[in-house]
Amino acid sequence: MFQKVLVANRGEIAVQIIRALHEMDIAAVSVYSTADENSLFVKLADEAVCIGGPQPADSYLNMFNIISAAVLTGCDAIHPGYGFLSENAEFARLCKESNLVFIGPHYKTIDLMGNKSRARETMISANVPVIPGSNGMVRDLENAMVVAKQIGYPIMLKAADGGGGKGIRRINSPEDLKKAYQEAKREAETSFGNSDLYIEKIIENAKHIEMQVIADQFGHYVFLPERDCSLQRNNQKVIEETPCATISHSERESLGDIVVRAAKAINYYNTGTIEFLMDENHNFYFMEMNTRLQVEHTVTEEVTGIELIKEQIKIAEGLKLDFSQADVEILGHAIECRINAEDPSNGFMPSAGTIKHLFFPDGTMGVRIDSGITYGSMIPPFYDSMISKIIVKMPNRVQATRKMRRVLDEFEIEGVTSNKAFLEALLVDKGFEQGLFTTKYIENVFLKEWLSNAK
Amino acid sequence: MFQKVLVANRGEIAVQIIRALHEMDIAAVSVYSTADENSLFVKLADEAVCIGGPQPADSYLNMFNIISAAVLTGCDAIHPGYGFLSENAEFARLCKESNLVFIGPHYKTIDLMGNKSRARETMISANVPVIPGSNGMVRDLENAMVVAKQIGYPIMLKAADGGGGKGIRRINSPEDLKKAYQEAKREAETSFGNSDLYIEKIIENAKHIEMQVIADQFGHYVFLPERDCSLQRNNQKVIEETPCATISHSERESLGDIVVRAAKAINYYNTGTIEFLMDENHNFYFMEMNTRLQVEHTVTEEVTGIELIKEQIKIAEGLKLDFSQADVEILGHAIECRINAEDPSNGFMPSAGTIKHLFFPDGTMGVRIDSGITYGSMIPPFYDSMISKIIVKMPNRVQATRKMRRVLDEFEIEGVTSNKAFLEALLVDKGFEQGLFTTKYIENVFLKEWLSNAK
Repeated sequence: MFQKVLVANRGEIAVQIIRALHEMDIAAVSVYSTADENSLFVKLADEAVCIGGPQPADSYLNMFNIISAAVLTGCDAIHPGYGFLSENAEFARLCKESNLVFIGPHYKTIDLMGNKSRARETMISANVPVIPGSNGMVRDLENAMVVAKQIGYPIMLKAADGGGGKGIRRINSPEDLKKAYQEAKREAETSFGNSDLYIEKIIENAKHIEMQVIADQFGHYVFLPERDCSLQRNNQKVIEETPCATISHSERESLGDIVVRAAKAINYYNTGTIEFLMDENHNFYFMEMNTRLQVEHTVTEEVTGIELIKEQIKIAEGLKLDFSQADVEILGHAIECRINAEDPSNGFMPSAGTIKHLFFPDGTMGVRIDSGITYGSMIPPFYDSMISKIIVKMPNRVQATRKMRRVLDEFEIEGVTSNKAFLEALLVDKGFEQGLFTTKYIENVFLKEWLSNAK
Repeated sequence: MFQKVLVANRGEIAVQIIRALHEMDIAAVSVYSTADENSLFVKLADEAVCIGGPQPADSYLNMFNIISAAVLTGCDAIHPGYGFLSENAEFARLCKESNLVFIGPHYKTIDLMGNKSRARETMISANVPVIPGSNGMVRDLENAMVVAKQIGYPIMLKAADGGGGKGIRRINSPEDLKKAYQEAKREAETSFGNSDLYIEKIIENAKHIEMQVIADQFGHYVFLPERDCSLQRNNQKVIEETPCATISHSERESLGDIVVRAAKAINYYNTGTIEFLMDENHNFYFMEMNTRLQVEHTVTEEVTGIELIKEQIKIAEGLKLDFSQADVEILGHAIECRINAEDPSNGFMPSAGTIKHLFFPDGTMGVRIDSGITYGSMIPPFYDSMISKIIVKMPNRVQATRKMRRVLDEFEIEGVTSNKAFLEALLVDKGFEQGLFTTKYIENVFLKEWLSNAK
C-alpha cells in the first residue's frame, strides 16, 4: 500500500487527488510552480516542493524535477491528474525506472493509444467500429473514387502530415472529388512536403459520446454509463452530462461491450475513456482513447457512486476491483458545468487576476463544486482557464437542469471575468433542453444567437 | 401552484428553503430581524421585509408581523422551517384565517401532537408502543406499587406539572418507591401547587431513533429509513446518521409500519418525524412527533434522493406524492455534523462575532454543506448557535466516516469559536466507530474523557 504519493498537477484536480489520498490515509506531496505558491493545492498537501518557474515547460512538464521531488520526498507513486504529463509515455516509463508507480496504465499502452493511426489499427483488429476511411493512404484518384463510393459522401480528404485544421477539405460528391484531388495533392506537397492523402467519412450531426472503463491488473473490466460531451466550443468541452438523454439501455449495453472489448485488446488497466462520435442513427465510431482521468469524471462518480481517483490509486497499488459490472447502477442524472476564467463576450479571452469575492452555492441535495480556488486566490495567466467545476446530480435530467440553473444563478466571482452568463444562457436554451445538440451546436447555432442577443 | 412564499425563519434553513422555492420557480420572501440585515438568507430572497428587533419575540416569533409581511408582499403561503413558529398551532391557524397556506400539517394536528399526554393517548389508541407507565396519574402508593411492578424497575416518578428536569426522581426498587412516594408528593405540592404524580419506565441504554414520514392530503403515506440521533449533548443532537448502524431491514420495515399507522391515526399530511427510544433489545417506544421539517432531514434526502422541503411545498400545494413506498431505496450511508458557534472547552458557551475567515471543503463525491453563513457574515448572539451542517453520503458507513473526518480536517472558520475539534474527536472515537452509542454516551463517557485529555 502507498504511504506517500506525489501529485504532478495543479489547480482543482490536484485538490481532489489530495483529498482522495487523505481519505485513504496516504500522505500527499504537491509540486508547484512559482506562480502557484499560495494555491489551495499547495496548502492542502502534507508537503510541497517548488519545481520551477511559471511556464509549464519549466515546472508541470519538467519530468526530471518532478521525479526528483518524488524521490527526495520518499514517495511511492505519482498521480498525474489530467493534462500536463498524464498521457506522456516517456514520463510513465521514467517513473518506472525510478521505482515510482505511475498511477495510470502501462507506458506502452499510453504510447499505443497516443498514436492516432496505430490506435485506429488496433481498434479495427479488435472489431471496434472506427470512422470509415481509406485505411492508410489512397494510391490515386481512381482508388480515392472507389473508397469514397464505398464509404459514402460527404467525405474529408486529408493530407497525411496536415493537422490543426490545415490540409483538410470537405468533398460532397464524385464530381467534387474529381475536381479537387490533384489540387489537394499539390497543396499537400507545397505545404507539408508530403503529397500523401487519405480519406475519412464525415459523420454529420454527430454527438460526442464517451464511455468510462475501469480495469484492474487482473483482467477485470467494468464500463460505466456514457457521458454526452457534445457541448463544445473550440474543441473544449463546456457542459458534460451522464447518461446521454437520447441513448437507450440496450444501446448503452452494446457500447459497453465494445468498450470492454477495446480495453481488453490492449490489456488496459487504470481508468480510461473511449471517445466516440455517434451519428443520427446512433452508430458509434471510435475517435480516440484517453488513458487517464478526465475532467468530467465527476458526473460518472455522481451517478454510479464510484470514486474514480480512489479506484485509480487502488488499481495502481495492485488491488482487485471490488465491484463487478452487475453492481453498476445509474442512480440519477448528473451535469457538469466548467467554470472558466474567460470572457465569452470578448472571444473567450482568458482572464487572470486575484479573486476578490467568491460565493459557491454549495448546499442542498445534489450539488458538488470541485474547485482549486478560494477567496483571495490568484488565477495566473500561464495555465488552463478552467478554475472550478459545478456538478449537480438529481433523480432525472429535468431536475438536474433546474438545479444547475439555480446554482449558477447564485454563483458569484469577482476579480476575474467568468463564463457564468454563457453557461446560464446555455442552460435555458431549447437545444439544451431537448438534448438533441451535436458537437457543432454551440458554434453553429447557439453562440451566434447568444452573441447577437448580447449586443 | 404557489407564486410567492414567505420564509418565516433565518439562517441556514431559510437559505435552503429559498433554494427549494427557486428551483420550483416560486419567488421567496425573507423576513428578518435588525440583527440579520446582512445575512445570506436576506440576500438570496427575491424580497425581504424587516419584522422587528433582534429578540426572537420581537421578530421571528412575532406572528402578526410575519403574517402582515406575507399579506403585504402578496404571498400564497408561509414555510416555517424548524424551531420558532414551526410547531405553533396558533400561528398555523392564523395563516389559514389570513388565506395563507401554512406549509405544514393541519393546525389541529400540530396542537394534538404538541400536547404530551394527548399525543401519548392517541398513540396508545393507534397501537403504537409508548414508554410503559401509569397511563395518567397514580392514585396512591398502593396503586404506584402495582403499576411499578407491572412495568418493571427502574422507573421515573414524575410530578404532573414538573418539567425541565424538575419534579423527577429515579426509583430503582419497591423499597425506594415506598421511601420516596410521600416526599415526592409533598415536593410536587410545594413546587408546583399540584401533588399529582405519574410513573414512567426508564429505558436504559437507549438509542434515539426517529423515522421520517411523508404524507399528502390524499391519504398516501411513505416512511423513510430511520435516523440514529443518539449522539446528543444537553438534549441537543450533535451528529445524526441514516440508516442506524445496528438496525436490520426487518426492524426498519416494522418500525415503518408503526410510523405509518401513527400518521394515519391523526390524518397527518406534510413531512413529519416520529421519535422513539430503542432499548438494548431493539424494542421501540414512542417519545414524540415533530410536525415539521427537522434539522437532520438532510441525511434522509441524501440516502433516498427525495428532497423533503420540495415535498412539503408540493403537498401544501395539494399535489399527490409522485412516489410510493416501493420506490424508496437506501442509496448509501449519510452522516451530518452540526457546526455550532460555541466553545466546547468552555462549557459549550455560545460564541458570537464576525466571520473573518471561512473555508468550506465542498468538492469530491458525497460532500454537502448546508450553511447560512459566508465570508464576512455576522453571527448574532440572539439565536441558536448552529450555523452550518456538514453532510456526507457514501456507499457505506466506514467510507462516510472517513470522508467526514477529512472534510472536518479541512474546514476552517475564524471570528467565532466552533465545535470543530469536538466533532473531530467524536469521529475518531471507538464508540462512534462501533455505532453502539446511546443517548447518554457523549455526556457519560465521551465528554469526560475528551475534556480530561484536552487539559
